Amino acid sequence: MANFSGVITVEDRLAILDMFARQSHCIDGGDAAGWAATYAVEGSFHSPTYKLTATGRAALTEFAENSNAGARSRGEQFRHHVSAIMLTPKTPTEVTSVSYLMILATTLDGTRVDRSVRMFDDLVKVEGEWLVASRTVLRDDAELQAK
Amino acid sequence: MANFSGVITVEDRLAILDMFARQSHCIDGGDAAGWAATYAVEGSFHSPTYKLTATGRAALTEFAENSNAGARSRGEQFRHHVSAIMLTPKTPTEVTSVSYLMILATTLDGTRVDRSVRMFDDLVKVEGEWLVASRTVLRDDAELQAK
Amino acid sequence: MANFSGVITVEDRLAILDMFARQSHCIDGGDAAGWAATYAVEGSFHSPTYKLTATGRAALTEFAENSNAGARSRGEQFRHHVSAIMLTPKTPTEVTSVSYLMILATTLDGTRVDRSVRMFDDLVKVEGEWLVASRTVLRDDAELQAK
Repeated sequence: MANFSGVITVEDRLAILDMFARQSHCIDGGDAAGWAATYAVEGSFHSPTYKLTATGRAALTEFAENSNAGARSRGEQFRHHVSAIMLTPKTPTEVTSVSYLMILATTLDGTRVDRSVRMFDDLVKVEGEWLVASRTVLRDDAELQAK
Repeated sequence: MANFSGVITVEDRLAILDMFARQSHCIDGGDAAGWAATYAVEGSFHSPTYKLTATGRAALTEFAENSNAGARSRGEQFRHHVSAIMLTPKTPTEVTSVSYLMILATTLDGTRVDRSVRMFDDLVKVEGEWLVASRTVLRDDAELQAK
Repeated sequence: MANFSGVITVEDRLAILDMFARQSHCIDGGDAAGWAATYAVEGSFHSPTYKLTATGRAALTEFAENSNAGARSRGEQFRHHVSAIMLTPKTPTEVTSVSYLMILATTLDGTRVDRSVRMFDDLVKVEGEWLVASRTVLRDDAELQAK
């Protein structure tokens, strides 16, 4: 598909940034359904590293629950910090995003960087709300290993 | 109070983001009075972890001076990185904010994540300027311990 | 020069933030020429710590290539995270910026904070595009040592 010639409106851009922030607070705060609700109804999450694909909100909710439960069982509190967000409009309701994700893990012994990841997203505007249609996450360490 | 039905204007939002950035540069750069000036005249800072409350600009200045002096006495340079800022408008001049704060500490031996914190802010617009009316900071490690 | 009395337009501000994000993806992704293209034609990069100055796009490209090649030779993937960006307009086409830069380094053994840096930039708008006219980077550890 040829690129959309237009630009993202300021309102769309800010709504997308809000969505990223909300995702972090939801998944780190144990609101798995809230995190899944930031995906389109048939949205999907792909992690080649873990050979994982979750599609649809029920599967996405389960994935987020497992992720958070895993951290809690290790006595860890995760915090997802997203930065360097690059948005490219494709159509007035479709934007692709590439961004950095740093996950911090805190235990009673202190805080460390758990991992560094890139996120490749197809975002879609549905009834005025920006949602993730498809996300692929690539861990930097897995990428190094693949080289 | 019922939530304000309106949205934050782009100008208000950007002014708030500027305020967060200015706070980091002030407190890390040793400008304690500049940091305190980002609070309302009767603004307050609460840290349940340290059983600390500072109210009013004189007390806030003293808190910032002590915080920075403590880091310097340990040979540390702090950097406050704020992200995942979620803003909720309450009235045209009142916004609540929840955000992540990562504090980096650098010594001659290198840089490490000193701590991971959430900030819960009541922000207020006074004479055209967004200020902190009340801030509560919760350290992730203290929250884990409380569980 | 007296400060420009005006403010940065929302469009200019967002274009500047996009430029910072693009720089990170370029330099971390090995696109040295793409990184250099975010500088003005006679733009310059200064690192007092390394007693380094690179001026002009050929020299900037070479600097970025060497930086990335060094990381790769150590088995490291860098990620540049910029935050706390404070912009001050000087004229309608000139803005100064002070910001924090955290560089993450990932190896097969995990991810760590490689360094904490402040960036002092003179930005210039050339034919509608915001570019770096001059950048000086100061490492926190070098600043501590100089005290």
